[in-house]
Amino acid sequence: MWSELRRIGRDADSGGYRRHAWTGADADCRNWFQEQAEARGLVYETDRNGNQWAWLGGPPPASVGGTPTPASVGGTPTPASGGGTGNVSASGRSTPGAPAVGDAVVTGSHLDSVPDGGAFDGPLGVVSAFAALDELRRRGAEFTRPFAITNFADEEGARFGLACVGSRLAAGQLTREQAYALRDADGVCLPEAMEAAGLDPGTIGADPERLARVGAFVELHVEQGRALDVSGDPVGIASAIWPHGRWRFDFRGEANHAGTTRLADRRDPMPTYAETVLAARREAELAGAVATFGKVSVEPNGVNAIPSLVRGWLDSRAADQAVLDAVVSAIEQAAKDRAERDGVDLAVVRESFTPVVEFGHALRDEIGRLLGGRVPLLGTGAGHDAGILSAAVPTAMLFVRNPTGVSHSPAEYAAEDDCVAGVLALADVLEGLACR
Amino acid sequence: MWSELRRIGRDADSGGYRRHAWTGADADCRNWFQEQAEARGLVYETDRNGNQWAWLGGPPPASVGGTPTPASVGGTPTPASGGGTGNVSASGRSTPGAPAVGDAVVTGSHLDSVPDGGAFDGPLGVVSAFAALDELRRRGAEFTRPFAITNFADEEGARFGLACVGSRLAAGQLTREQAYALRDADGVCLPEAMEAAGLDPGTIGADPERLARVGAFVELHVEQGRALDVSGDPVGIASAIWPHGRWRFDFRGEANHAGTTRLADRRDPMPTYAETVLAARREAELAGAVATFGKVSVEPNGVNAIPSLVRGWLDSRAADQAVLDAVVSAIEQAAKDRAERDGVDLAVVRESFTPVVEFGHALRDEIGRLLGGRVPLLGTGAGHDAGILSAAVPTAMLFVRNPTGVSHSPAEYAAEDDCVAGVLALADVLEGLACR
Repeated sequence: MWSELRRIGRDADSGGYRRHAWTGADADCRNWFQEQAEARGLVYETDRNGNQWAWLGGPPPASVGGTPTPASVGGTPTPASGGGTGNVSASGRSTPGAPAVGDAVVTGSHLDSVPDGGAFDGPLGVVSAFAALDELRRRGAEFTRPFAITNFADEEGARFGLACVGSRLAAGQLTREQAYALRDADGVCLPEAMEAAGLDPGTIGADPERLARVGAFVELHVEQGRALDVSGDPVGIASAIWPHGRWRFDFRGEANHAGTTRLADRRDPMPTYAETVLAARREAELAGAVATFGKVSVEPNGVNAIPSLVRGWLDSRAADQAVLDAVVSAIEQAAKDRAERDGVDLAVVRESFTPVVEFGHALRDEIGRLLGGRVPLLGTGAGHDAGILSAAVPTAMLFVRNPTGVSHSPAEYAAEDDCVAGVLALADVLEGLACR
Repeated sequence: MWSELRRIGRDADSGGYRRHAWTGADADCRNWFQEQAEARGLVYETDRNGNQWAWLGGPPPASVGGTPTPASVGGTPTPASGGGTGNVSASGRSTPGAPAVGDAVVTGSHLDSVPDGGAFDGPLGVVSAFAALDELRRRGAEFTRPFAITNFADEEGARFGLACVGSRLAAGQLTREQAYALRDADGVCLPEAMEAAGLDPGTIGADPERLARVGAFVELHVEQGRALDVSGDPVGIASAIWPHGRWRFDFRGEANHAGTTRLADRRDPMPTYAETVLAARREAELAGAVATFGKVSVEPNGVNAIPSLVRGWLDSRAADQAVLDAVVSAIEQAAKDRAERDGVDLAVVRESFTPVVEFGHALRDEIGRLLGGRVPLLGTGAGHDAGILSAAVPTAMLFVRNPTGVSHSPAEYAAEDDCVAGVLALADVLEGLACR
């Protein structure tokens, strides 16, 4: 299973993956998902936002015809025959004060990648989901709740610049109009890209009926830091996702000849950008946050031309929002001060922002118990579909140890033993949640 | 003439020109050149390196069949009939100690542009050449030496990264093998691009026979600084071109997740690059030189990925080579120090270098006399075909005032009166050199 998937979308030079949303490599990954689902007798479907679902025994009916309310939970679901493995019961479940929930247990992650990404970020969660189902069948577990495996579309945002598009759309955190305005570097807009991939972009948008069927979403993911390596544990449980955002800094100067323009006559935005990069590193260091300029575009980008425009994207995250706000403000101030000195115009646009996500304690604690209570809790700076969905359904995440902490890189890695430990932990969790 | 040419290759958004070598816009410019030549009864030809020549009365025979030597100068040239305007004499001319020279007087410049370049850099010299010929015909001047107008190919190096390719090839400063290895950003190599433009790349290389026919090359150019604006003169004469070079700085770190990788665990090449940009500005300021990072490329260039590679190109120039060497060494040292701190690998490659060009005093002084002795001499930081050719033939340059000093930008400008003054000065020079 892993060896088939790992061939797709891999760059021969870098060894990294380029599985950007709605490209050919992405389509190959999606076909692989459908094949895995059908080989296991699962009922495959694509939702209105292009997310893939593989249901054991077929999708359950919606909790209620219209918008779900707590009162509807546990009402209408009817049994569907399990896909040769078990039975799906209708036992609804409601947590007081939590969002309206159905009773389906869902697990999965995403298959797309950043440019030159690693093999694990995303795919490990999908592959482990299928492997955990295989393990539960081996154990002879009987499913008492509806169960699905998912692949969320466009999680990395590598092509259109916004992360978690599939889950944001489903959760109503991204409107159809906003999604339609997304364009890739070649000027292709999201609906065009989806249409080219054979989907109907006319249907995208909030999907409350679907999410109302879900009682628990559990995403397994390779850790993207070294907390588990330090603590010596193969698997951990997520406590929270740090708040994070992306800001675009446009530094506008004046194009001019690099050889003949006196330094005093220049309005060169490159030193302004450079000062801002160093300020970002400094402010993040002081605050215990992270701040990164990983993407830059320069106009006209000629060796002998002073740039007219340097555009740099800041990604910054911190344990809480007050710290993050302070870091970004300090970086903006440093950029502004230097821009004045350089005769450069500065505009800062916040392109995306995700507040802190504290995973629900009830599900998190239940998973802790199912795993024997000795699994560490850890926070993370990375955004995930689970973080987006947590606003709509109870979600939790499992992390698998990454010995170097490297991710978003071909060097991203998890040991085979740890991957197996992840599959077994996920199987234990799913068995506990869906097969009681 | 100017209004026809100014439409070609102009970007509707920026107002800047994108006339990159061997593209469609370049072909349009080249067709314009041929039409202008033929409309004036000049004999048009393309040389083996794609440079365009328009000969009054047709090209003169080579000074001698083989490689020119001082002894051959003034030997074989025979008269050719002038194109309806005058006669071309066979009076050879030899300057003791100077390169072997024929007796043709040649003027021109280039028509290609940097990305988003201005309307004047290059085209002003070609348009002024045709206009000066028109002026000389109006004056009824009789040509006593062969005369040609030229457009040198790929002066800006915007596409293949090396400036003055046409003149470098002709002068033997770029071998066919080196030229064949040049590639543009899309991976198209120079011979492919030339072939696509209808030329035979099999013939490119040193062209000593052709250069041996040239007794004087005069290039008129818009000034790319503000010296004439400060001195209050519409036209000036070049004294020297500063030595200059291009260095590629490769900063290699490790791609990683921008949200989850602790600052202490990063090998992020972006701060290293940023520190180097600031060092370049500082060192140039201290030394009275110029240093510019105008071009950057980043891998993978994702908002949420720490870069694995930042590649920045340094363009630096100074009045003399010792100063330039010191500036570049200091920048390299600053980059190296920071790279060590950031855990980044640094490689610096000198991609091109042009030593100081001191224009020959004999031709320069003669031009000064022809212009009445009140024309200021000025140095320049910009490279030109005239600088390349000065190693093979006597060359000189005239500059036309640029009130803002801006060039390589849509804001590049020369007042109409000053352009006319430039044409009249060029006509005076050509009359004095070619019509005595």
